[in-house]
Amino acid sequence: MTTPAISPEDTPEGRLAAARQAVLTKPPGSLGRLEELAIRLAGIQGVELPTASPAAAVIFASDHPVARHGVSAYPAEVTGQMMENFAAGGAASTVMARAQAVPLTVVDVGVASPYTPSRTVRRHPVAEAPVGDLREARAMPRETLELAMAAGADAVDDLDGARVLVLGEMGIGNTTAAAAVAAALLDSDAAALVGPGTGVTGAAFEHKIEVVDEALDHFRNAQGHATRDARTVLAALGGRELAALAGALLAAPKRRLPVLVDGFIVSAAALAAVAIEPSVAQVLVFSHCSAEQGHRRILDALGARPLLDLDLRLGEATGALTALPLLDLACRTHAEMATFSEAGIAGPAES
Amino acid sequence: MTTPAISPEDTPEGRLAAARQAVLTKPPGSLGRLEELAIRLAGIQGVELPTASPAAAVIFASDHPVARHGVSAYPAEVTGQMMENFAAGGAASTVMARAQAVPLTVVDVGVASPYTPSRTVRRHPVAEAPVGDLREARAMPRETLELAMAAGADAVDDLDGARVLVLGEMGIGNTTAAAAVAAALLDSDAAALVGPGTGVTGAAFEHKIEVVDEALDHFRNAQGHATRDARTVLAALGGRELAALAGALLAAPKRRLPVLVDGFIVSAAALAAVAIEPSVAQVLVFSHCSAEQGHRRILDALGARPLLDLDLRLGEATGALTALPLLDLACRTHAEMATFSEAGIAGPAES
Repeated sequence: MTTPAISPEDTPEGRLAAARQAVLTKPPGSLGRLEELAIRLAGIQGVELPTASPAAAVIFASDHPVARHGVSAYPAEVTGQMMENFAAGGAASTVMARAQAVPLTVVDVGVASPYTPSRTVRRHPVAEAPVGDLREARAMPRETLELAMAAGADAVDDLDGARVLVLGEMGIGNTTAAAAVAAALLDSDAAALVGPGTGVTGAAFEHKIEVVDEALDHFRNAQGHATRDARTVLAALGGRELAALAGALLAAPKRRLPVLVDGFIVSAAALAAVAIEPSVAQVLVFSHCSAEQGHRRILDALGARPLLDLDLRLGEATGALTALPLLDLACRTHAEMATFSEAGIAGPAES
Repeated sequence: MTTPAISPEDTPEGRLAAARQAVLTKPPGSLGRLEELAIRLAGIQGVELPTASPAAAVIFASDHPVARHGVSAYPAEVTGQMMENFAAGGAASTVMARAQAVPLTVVDVGVASPYTPSRTVRRHPVAEAPVGDLREARAMPRETLELAMAAGADAVDDLDGARVLVLGEMGIGNTTAAAAVAAALLDSDAAALVGPGTGVTGAAFEHKIEVVDEALDHFRNAQGHATRDARTVLAALGGRELAALAGALLAAPKRRLPVLVDGFIVSAAALAAVAIEPSVAQVLVFSHCSAEQGHRRILDALGARPLLDLDLRLGEATGALTALPLLDLACRTHAEMATFSEAGIAGPAES
């Protein structure tokens, strides 16, 4: 379980892909990170010619009791209202998914307010499971955690032939939970991980930091000592969408399924998943660096170099869906460009 | 001619677009640079709801007498061989254009070696016009310059309803010409603008710098004093694809046509075009920062903040074609997302 897997670039297929890149009709290396992407995807998928199509997007959604402390700029009922916006196709990520013909599913693992049922949003039984306010108590019992992680794994099992998994989340209050989880896993204080989220500023922002610091104190006292056991951290400080994301991430490596990681919250879940099973790191592709300030800290801890830096901070898989065309272009150029010999083109001049 | 145009963001349509972004179902500003893009494109196109579709890609190709001095890693006949690779769809940019259903045209404005004619590559009469070796003499007479610039404008006139223009170039030796043009316009020495291009290193790289410095000396002595007149610079130090790019750029503002700028060479042409007509700056969208070291210098001079930074250095419009999906996603989210009131979603909580 703890042996790091071989990196995708060092697999036989990764090396085949690198050799192919070297003979395509362009100066070697001149497609930069698109070449690296093609090689990485080849290693993850275990084929010389990887593909980013079809992709599938899964968004896990949940509410958080901690939201009652005013840690978000929006009221908690927005989570339920957004379930209807996803179903109607009016949310940013649904527009982006539709533009790319990517099926998008929302899995409700804990939305508290009522909403009209739809085919886009699937409610999982864990949405009815007991939870707590992470500021004062455990965010969820162990049974809820395991059920939420299973919901994530089930969502991956339900994918129908997807070759790339786009992961996202939605939930008022979840930058607070993600900051707490990341701070615990990185043995940090709250201030290094808490950002404005939906847009809290001034005194409300200071209050958000205090809430996370109190949660961390409570957690560390309850443990008797600092623990970085990721399941314990997720149960104490996380949320059901964070746990489901971790469950989905843990299910990806055995399917050789590249996961396009969205922003701050999915990255916090990835930090937990990698702590549980280091080989998860080998299937991750980081889409972007969020404007949420704690994201860079998590990316650094994971050794990640994201593809995009566009000041996005929406979540909902929007960063990952913005990066998805780059994966497609990387795979298409890798597969479809002519080699120098196929095209009858002279190589570099002798010098 | 020299009055700067109003920036696209400050037009009535730009302000309408900004107002719309503020009420879409997301925290204001949370789509970061995608919001900025939608607002800029609205201002350029003069509509509240801009579109990136259909786009069209035009690549100008030319050889350069200066290539005989060994300034490229590849022999000059590669320019002609690549014309066939474009026609066959094996070049990187043709793969990327096909993947996005973007029509791509190559305009030969000076390819010296023979190649098989095709529908993809159009040979313009300026390809037969007299040119010189910019190291020792004028790169082209004024008549050739004007003809090449007209070739660029004609290519824009020939566009059939395109709403975004993707510009690129191909030509062995053209990073040398672009570095010379940019150095003259920025009153710089060669070392600040010359990069490895197709991959020259070591002594060959030092030689490339010397060639550009000699060209700059020759130019500055011939002028009697430093000139930054952009037409004079293009004729003395440029190439026909650089002049055609400048001509195309100059034709874009009156059509309210956003131009997605590729890398080092197109940016050098943009520097010249903006020097000729400042309003050209108002239609530019910079796609990426190239790994070619002089590119950052040009971008800074133009006040540009490119969308991508992926270590690309291929040219051929590949950087612009990699950024094109971002324009599409920016326009699609701008047009298709629900507003808070349409979706019946609560706004920020009172605090």
